[in-house]
Amino acid sequence: MKYLTAGESHGKGLTAILEGFPAGVRIDCAAVDAELKRRQLGYGRGGRMKIESDSAEITAGLFGSVTLGSPIAFFIRNRDFEKWQAYTHPVSGDITQKKLTAVRPGHADYAGCRKYGFDNARPVLERASARETAARVGVGAFCKQLLSALGITVGSHVTEIGGQKSTARPLSAVGLNDRSDLSPVRCLDAEAEKKMIAVIDECMRSGDTAGGAVEILVSGLPAGVGSYAHYDRKLDGILARHLLSVQAFKAVEFGLGTAVAHTLGSHVHDEMAPSECGVVRNTNRAGGIEGGMSNGENLVISVAVKPIPTLMQGLKTVDIATGQATVAHPERSDYCAVPAAGVVAEAVVAYAVADALLCVTGGDDFDTIAARVQEMRQRAKVCAK
Amino acid sequence: MKYLTAGESHGKGLTAILEGFPAGVRIDCAAVDAELKRRQLGYGRGGRMKIESDSAEITAGLFGSVTLGSPIAFFIRNRDFEKWQAYTHPVSGDITQKKLTAVRPGHADYAGCRKYGFDNARPVLERASARETAARVGVGAFCKQLLSALGITVGSHVTEIGGQKSTARPLSAVGLNDRSDLSPVRCLDAEAEKKMIAVIDECMRSGDTAGGAVEILVSGLPAGVGSYAHYDRKLDGILARHLLSVQAFKAVEFGLGTAVAHTLGSHVHDEMAPSECGVVRNTNRAGGIEGGMSNGENLVISVAVKPIPTLMQGLKTVDIATGQATVAHPERSDYCAVPAAGVVAEAVVAYAVADALLCVTGGDDFDTIAARVQEMRQRAKVCAK
Amino acid sequence: MKYLTAGESHGKGLTAILEGFPAGVRIDCAAVDAELKRRQLGYGRGGRMKIESDSAEITAGLFGSVTLGSPIAFFIRNRDFEKWQAYTHPVSGDITQKKLTAVRPGHADYAGCRKYGFDNARPVLERASARETAARVGVGAFCKQLLSALGITVGSHVTEIGGQKSTARPLSAVGLNDRSDLSPVRCLDAEAEKKMIAVIDECMRSGDTAGGAVEILVSGLPAGVGSYAHYDRKLDGILARHLLSVQAFKAVEFGLGTAVAHTLGSHVHDEMAPSECGVVRNTNRAGGIEGGMSNGENLVISVAVKPIPTLMQGLKTVDIATGQATVAHPERSDYCAVPAAGVVAEAVVAYAVADALLCVTGGDDFDTIAARVQEMRQRAKVCAK
Amino acid sequence: MKYLTAGESHGKGLTAILEGFPAGVRIDCAAVDAELKRRQLGYGRGGRMKIESDSAEITAGLFGSVTLGSPIAFFIRNRDFEKWQAYTHPVSGDITQKKLTAVRPGHADYAGCRKYGFDNARPVLERASARETAARVGVGAFCKQLLSALGITVGSHVTEIGGQKSTARPLSAVGLNDRSDLSPVRCLDAEAEKKMIAVIDECMRSGDTAGGAVEILVSGLPAGVGSYAHYDRKLDGILARHLLSVQAFKAVEFGLGTAVAHTLGSHVHDEMAPSECGVVRNTNRAGGIEGGMSNGENLVISVAVKPIPTLMQGLKTVDIATGQATVAHPERSDYCAVPAAGVVAEAVVAYAVADALLCVTGGDDFDTIAARVQEMRQRAKVCAK
Repeated sequence: MKYLTAGESHGKGLTAILEGFPAGVRIDCAAVDAELKRRQLGYGRGGRMKIESDSAEITAGLFGSVTLGSPIAFFIRNRDFEKWQAYTHPVSGDITQKKLTAVRPGHADYAGCRKYGFDNARPVLERASARETAARVGVGAFCKQLLSALGITVGSHVTEIGGQKSTARPLSAVGLNDRSDLSPVRCLDAEAEKKMIAVIDECMRSGDTAGGAVEILVSGLPAGVGSYAHYDRKLDGILARHLLSVQAFKAVEFGLGTAVAHTLGSHVHDEMAPSECGVVRNTNRAGGIEGGMSNGENLVISVAVKPIPTLMQGLKTVDIATGQATVAHPERSDYCAVPAAGVVAEAVVAYAVADALLCVTGGDDFDTIAARVQEMRQRAKVCAK
Repeated sequence: MKYLTAGESHGKGLTAILEGFPAGVRIDCAAVDAELKRRQLGYGRGGRMKIESDSAEITAGLFGSVTLGSPIAFFIRNRDFEKWQAYTHPVSGDITQKKLTAVRPGHADYAGCRKYGFDNARPVLERASARETAARVGVGAFCKQLLSALGITVGSHVTEIGGQKSTARPLSAVGLNDRSDLSPVRCLDAEAEKKMIAVIDECMRSGDTAGGAVEILVSGLPAGVGSYAHYDRKLDGILARHLLSVQAFKAVEFGLGTAVAHTLGSHVHDEMAPSECGVVRNTNRAGGIEGGMSNGENLVISVAVKPIPTLMQGLKTVDIATGQATVAHPERSDYCAVPAAGVVAEAVVAYAVADALLCVTGGDDFDTIAARVQEMRQRAKVCAK
Repeated sequence: MKYLTAGESHGKGLTAILEGFPAGVRIDCAAVDAELKRRQLGYGRGGRMKIESDSAEITAGLFGSVTLGSPIAFFIRNRDFEKWQAYTHPVSGDITQKKLTAVRPGHADYAGCRKYGFDNARPVLERASARETAARVGVGAFCKQLLSALGITVGSHVTEIGGQKSTARPLSAVGLNDRSDLSPVRCLDAEAEKKMIAVIDECMRSGDTAGGAVEILVSGLPAGVGSYAHYDRKLDGILARHLLSVQAFKAVEFGLGTAVAHTLGSHVHDEMAPSECGVVRNTNRAGGIEGGMSNGENLVISVAVKPIPTLMQGLKTVDIATGQATVAHPERSDYCAVPAAGVVAEAVVAYAVADALLCVTGGDDFDTIAARVQEMRQRAKVCAK
Repeated sequence: MKYLTAGESHGKGLTAILEGFPAGVRIDCAAVDAELKRRQLGYGRGGRMKIESDSAEITAGLFGSVTLGSPIAFFIRNRDFEKWQAYTHPVSGDITQKKLTAVRPGHADYAGCRKYGFDNARPVLERASARETAARVGVGAFCKQLLSALGITVGSHVTEIGGQKSTARPLSAVGLNDRSDLSPVRCLDAEAEKKMIAVIDECMRSGDTAGGAVEILVSGLPAGVGSYAHYDRKLDGILARHLLSVQAFKAVEFGLGTAVAHTLGSHVHDEMAPSECGVVRNTNRAGGIEGGMSNGENLVISVAVKPIPTLMQGLKTVDIATGQATVAHPERSDYCAVPAAGVVAEAVVAYAVADALLCVTGGDDFDTIAARVQEMRQRAKVCAK
């Protein structure tokens, strides 16, 4: 598969095309919108989330909610385009009337202006904005439904916000989102949830922002997806590439992750024992990946999400038009986007996993693919958990 | 650029082809071998490193040590192929005489056998072995020389082994390896170095292994490499993909990395101030990447390296031939490969950075590319540090 | 660059995303629609062309008609979707109510049903239809404007329809379309034009269809685009890939093309002579490509276009539902689409040439790219013609 | 799959890596060399072919002649490297002592020097030389053996040399090479063979060269390989890309090819009739591809091969060092390479077909892939021919 997204933050809307998706997958179109909605939720969001209420208009690739094997396209309208169109209309807008020259630290503004020779960071931030992730959540929503139909579940929960850590470490992605979505910070640990909310409240008071961490789980993936044979087919490398292409993600960890640096080998690797239906393991410190391949255990991945760089208290910077010191203008923004980051992370993981799986199964239509996934499971004889 | 590597651990040798490398780069061929040698060093290596003493025979892409613009090929002979050829000869070997069925936890063995339907893990481990990284170090050595000629330096040092942490945080990649290579564990902090060596000594005694962490720096990269425009051109995603495709790497962090989860926005983003030649920053918590692009500061990347999964003390596992419980056979191996991991990390970073830079500069020959890098630097007017 | 298109023939419309297009290119948006219109013209079209009157709604990648460097998206509405939506609505349509089981020879119907296991060719033909080329013409329209701003022109004319050959062989793409578009069959030879029209008239009478050939020229391309170094960077291979991915194209020829099989070497290669500003050649039998690279002469490419496979007289086939012999249903269709094929060919050539050129120039914004194209021209010192 | 080749014409040798080839394919290594030998045969070759006698040393990807699923590497030594190494040794050669500045028309010399800013065409011609095709023939030899094991055969024969045309149009690739390889010009038509040889003899006398045409057939490929869904997955586009990346190929035709321009639709499309085991067709004017997919019939492809541009009689050109008129130096060369071109064409077709087939089947090991090809055949129920 491959996909492209397009769209500016205050332009007409976001467009996505997903090519190579199999035929014969029945899509719950409302569930696609529900994923878009999940991205807009979470404690600590600013005003825009209420404006948006995203919805994907599917324009290609399905008839009657069933995929055709043809490229899938959808469009997510930007609801505040009308207010912005004097500047951002593709044909007639005049963005020079809406200059931003006090480049904002932590954003793409400065490097983007240098890259393109722009004297106005507006075109940069319009595309670099995390608004774009709505399109990726849409793409991921299709992939999740494909995976789900194949018995593979993707879920996430927030493990840390502003230094407040959750102790919960769920054992499966199945049902995970049902529980994490109940929390305004998508946290499974009630104690930690309270403290996370308190941190965000404090940010609202002080004009600061809070980052955090999210754990993503994938359950039901058969062993042997990815490859050890060549670097660009390794599943961990593929997942890392997708995850670290998400705005604000600064680290990715598989299984024990950074903890492997202070744990000796005897406590890092997952021993195996026989079972009636294959092998069992009591630990999953590898996070479900050995040798660049899924090993039949849950994928367990963690990402670190930086605090939103638009601070109401302002950050010192330079005006690239004058070369003078100034303070970055605090546009309307969120105080904490970590809960939403989990939804985005699920989406890119779903795409990456589906794509890597299809490399192994081949097949153009759902029934063929489903039968081949079944073969993979038979071959591995891994016990259901 | 693109590259492929081939070769089994005990086969004839490793082959690499690097395509798209510019013409007119004068290569110090001895320096390529020196990089291969660096990969073989480090306290805690087992016997094989002495056997190998790798050397790259360049077979294509250069005349008289100057690149032609044509694909570069080189071959690294495996010095113990002769002992193994009854099993591993490409044409006449019989690998069924050298079965490994007690699949080793932490290795590719189990998932690899499931993927291919093998009843012998030998073909898996022969390719999945970290021996393959020698070819990548060779590829990276060419890229480093290109970058160096363009004023861009890549270096690394070990920041942690078995829980012992270095306090050193060098401010530039320039001269970094000159210092870190002096240490048997590639650590800049003399106190930590002693403790790291002690941990490794203890592993040798107990039959355990130690992991760690490595920091990689890139200095001199102009702003604007990578892109915010589309997910697959983001520099952090690209780097992560290459780094997490390296055997044993379980986490990657940019700048503050996982620490962004417990640091508020006011202490995460790097404020800017005017300077006579552009902008200056007093901090580099972003690790040199904002909005998926280099921002003119040093790239600062950290990777976590898991302990080698071959333990002399053995790990419990299953014999896939019999389905019975057994203990993984401890083949000759290393106790700690973290110092070498840094050399591999430098190599894949060098490739990724060179490739991303060439996307911006275009150009087929060195002089053209050098002039364009100069233009990029002029545009950014970033002060030299 | 890369691009994706989506959309079914009777679905909501066509979507395209073009990623990697440089910033700072001023787009004449009306000219994009004009290209779409050119695709709909030509003697021998059926009724649908009147229905369509295509127009691209640009939804991303531009503000005020200037490209941002961000992905460009546009949508071309299908004007007869309303009539078809009971069958083709992405969410609610029921395509099983609109079965086509008498698979049509020459179309994708049969192989598509086998590929996907469909018992209805409708989903196949909806995407396989040449309607999709409207999206590619849109993509090409952006590329043509980029090329034009760089002094590079793409044009085409029809050289044969139903065996009637044009004797015209224009020497430049500059101004070419101004002349060829005046002809209802896009033919520069008035005598041949008459005969071509007569062939089409005869087809209308007999219920047959006519194919033909189109010559595409590219003028102003500097030498050195493409590469001899690796097979996948050869300009002729790249162009062939794009051209033979167009519906109905069955052959592609560069320069003398198939005539090289009956011409000796002394009359195939283009001798060179000195000129005050470089080299000159009196012939261009190579079609502007030597060694997989542009050589500074015009690109001259010819494609053969098969007759439309929907014949009013019907073709014998099999009903895949019953396995019985039947006759393919002659849906409303065109009698000759060769003039339009030239417009599509121009579009894919424009994309391929622009993409290959950007590989050499690099650069993110128009001014940088324009300066580098100028450098390429200086280097080659090829006389203007 | 993907592959890279490296190597200069008079350098140490040619290296190739083929990545993604399935595990479990038993390779006849002597048959790989036999393909290399086939490339060196044919009436009209110059002296070098006797020097070479190519042989592929396989260095990776197999144990005991069975593929591992790991990248395959091989090396083909250049037997006259020793004579050339003062100029072409990768480390120590001095190519400036072997200048070629009288750039040769029809070769990459001129455009290559412009591209790289070289003042010596030697580095260009060393890589642009058709010597590189030996590596591709090696790659294709592996793919042919995979296809053969799956019941798919690739063969070719020469249809024209210097205007002398063969009337033979074989109905299957099975056994084809057994017959065509018996002819010194690989022609199935004894009358035409004589005339072709006479043309070549005349070229030898006059110092001229002869081009021609080759037809390639692929038999046994199931329907549904390739795709109509997106342009870059269309089988004809993929094949064209590979074929037109071969040195000297100037045209490619599928089925009727250019003849579609003078044949009406009623005589272009292949009608279908029921048969006990699916559908049958009496014609194959489409060349086995409809809608960008294989349709279960033989692939029938024709390429036009230009005469070798190195003429003993010399061609007028410019010395790029002096800007003066001169005559291109006639280095030792062949008079006709059309028979060998067929072997190269088979190789790139075999790679392209195998790669496209694996996209549909998926699968990592031969048994899995073979079972899935069988499923495809069952689905199509196409009668064996």
